[in-house]
Amino acid sequence: MRIVERDIDDLPKNPANYTALTPLGFLERAALVHPTRKSVIHGSLTYTWQDTYRRCRRLASALAKRAVTFGSTVAVIAPNIPAMYEAHFGVPMSGAVLNAVNIRLNAQTIAFLLGHSKSSVIMVDQEFFTLAEEAVKILAEKSKGNFMSPLFIVIADENCDPKTLQYALRRGAIEYEKFLETGDPDFAWKPPEDEWHSIALGYTSGTTASPKGVVLHHRGAYLMALSNAIIWGMQEGAVYLWTLPLFHCNGWCFAWTLAAICGTSVCLRQVTAKAIYSAIDNLGVTHFCAAPVVLNSIANARNEEIVLPLRRTVNVMTAGAAPPPSLLFAMSQRGFRVAHTYGLS
Amino acid sequence: MRIVERDIDDLPKNPANYTALTPLGFLERAALVHPTRKSVIHGSLTYTWQDTYRRCRRLASALAKRAVTFGSTVAVIAPNIPAMYEAHFGVPMSGAVLNAVNIRLNAQTIAFLLGHSKSSVIMVDQEFFTLAEEAVKILAEKSKGNFMSPLFIVIADENCDPKTLQYALRRGAIEYEKFLETGDPDFAWKPPEDEWHSIALGYTSGTTASPKGVVLHHRGAYLMALSNAIIWGMQEGAVYLWTLPLFHCNGWCFAWTLAAICGTSVCLRQVTAKAIYSAIDNLGVTHFCAAPVVLNSIANARNEEIVLPLRRTVNVMTAGAAPPPSLLFAMSQRGFRVAHTYGLS
Repeated sequence: MRIVERDIDDLPKNPANYTALTPLGFLERAALVHPTRKSVIHGSLTYTWQDTYRRCRRLASALAKRAVTFGSTVAVIAPNIPAMYEAHFGVPMSGAVLNAVNIRLNAQTIAFLLGHSKSSVIMVDQEFFTLAEEAVKILAEKSKGNFMSPLFIVIADENCDPKTLQYALRRGAIEYEKFLETGDPDFAWKPPEDEWHSIALGYTSGTTASPKGVVLHHRGAYLMALSNAIIWGMQEGAVYLWTLPLFHCNGWCFAWTLAAICGTSVCLRQVTAKAIYSAIDNLGVTHFCAAPVVLNSIANARNEEIVLPLRRTVNVMTAGAAPPPSLLFAMSQRGFRVAHTYGLS
Repeated sequence: MRIVERDIDDLPKNPANYTALTPLGFLERAALVHPTRKSVIHGSLTYTWQDTYRRCRRLASALAKRAVTFGSTVAVIAPNIPAMYEAHFGVPMSGAVLNAVNIRLNAQTIAFLLGHSKSSVIMVDQEFFTLAEEAVKILAEKSKGNFMSPLFIVIADENCDPKTLQYALRRGAIEYEKFLETGDPDFAWKPPEDEWHSIALGYTSGTTASPKGVVLHHRGAYLMALSNAIIWGMQEGAVYLWTLPLFHCNGWCFAWTLAAICGTSVCLRQVTAKAIYSAIDNLGVTHFCAAPVVLNSIANARNEEIVLPLRRTVNVMTAGAAPPPSLLFAMSQRGFRVAHTYGLS
């Protein structure tokens, strides 16, 4: 049939005819559709989608000015704080690949990751600066001269010991907010030329051998982000609590899901039952993901940490080892709706 | 970066590495995840997702046995009845392209559509058989010998005058249910080799000249189906009323959205305010799409047709000419939540 033939032959040959799938467009849309809605909350800090889009474009622009581009890798060593969320958009908007590093790894392993990913920039939370510095030192020694020191961007957090920030600055790291100021808030970022291009790089925990790199492409991130919302029934404006680390498979792609549904991300630097109950009670949390061990802490929390009844049903997605029926029962009794999804640990 | 390069180079070259996006997979999943949940309701008829999947595979298999394959086109001339819904999966599962014809067109125009689309099979509701027959007669005369008569499949509906069915059978049409019996309910359908392949063909109304064909590919149908659910906050199990004709841009792709969220389709042969209020009250309708003219009939319905208050907020998506504020106000007062989307008429 003529029309079918035209459809098959032209489109793949002519990229101008198609738009690459990428979750980066979700952020642009969120800023356009709900500019004043809360995007990210962290303690006393609150950003709107307009703020987040501008900050992410600043980050992409500032990175581009430091020669970060397609083929580059930017490592982030941080807990679930705003900068970690912003890196999921700002880094790929510069054309680079995001390498979110597990903060529980030791310097030796992180050295391997930084070397294998050829990360030219390291965004690191002030509390983990010495760990990152130690890892780079190990990497430099191994590379014997054939080594270019990465750019250190230290992320300040008022919840941390000021000394760790002062130390990082003395060691020549540039502070994250200062770095953003060097970027253009109206930076004209471009979507990937090819949706199969990489957006993020993660590593296995390396229990059997050296960690293995796993690459996620823009197409996969886009589709996973939408699937999360469809499967879990997350509606526009959902409030998501960041108990699951963003460095675990990019928080199962929920960083991008939240932009797709214009929802709100509630950051959590330290995961405790008290902090979880408090966020649910004060910030309207509707969804969070957590490993079974976190569910245990919620179910077995001390009375003074618990705020019950929950103001609303809270949806919990858990993966990894299957939670025992007794735990699922205890959670449902407290008003949590737990969905157990496949997980490999 | 090595990993990025491997990602870019291998995947497009090696289709085995990727799964083509197609909404047909939604049906297979719905039958697997919610086999006993209601998929389609039409008067006294109720199908489950298991039923619908088996019926669609029967349709695809039966069509394949009649030499329908990749490159073929199957026309459907019917209102919003179960067979019309099933055609949106069964026809492309055979590899063919679906041509859903506007039942309000005259024989002359339909003759043009059937000729231009080279439809080799015509599925037609019993009430529209004479219209289809007249169109084919016109087409045959125009083609002067260079014409192969299409296979007529007549869809019986207990709500219609039996005479129209008897006439169609006398004229050699095969009845839809009989046709399904010739197909294999376990037919091993294949997703498209290329997600850019066509799934459906529609035509403009031809107000300025001969109707123009518009092709939808599997990729577009998949993405539009998911976007509908995300944008409109349609959750798993939503109950959708078919006021919008499926022959209008494939019901804005909602046929496939319903399978993606394992929701229920409530068919509506004739759109009246009474039927709409009744379906909302008796069948748990949560969503429907409608042109402003339908909203008018709902807002201005006579008291004996109205069932208020609504048992729940009913979401309405309208497109085309913008409804006047007075109409939007009247709808919201009755408990309808109207979303106006862009429409070209």
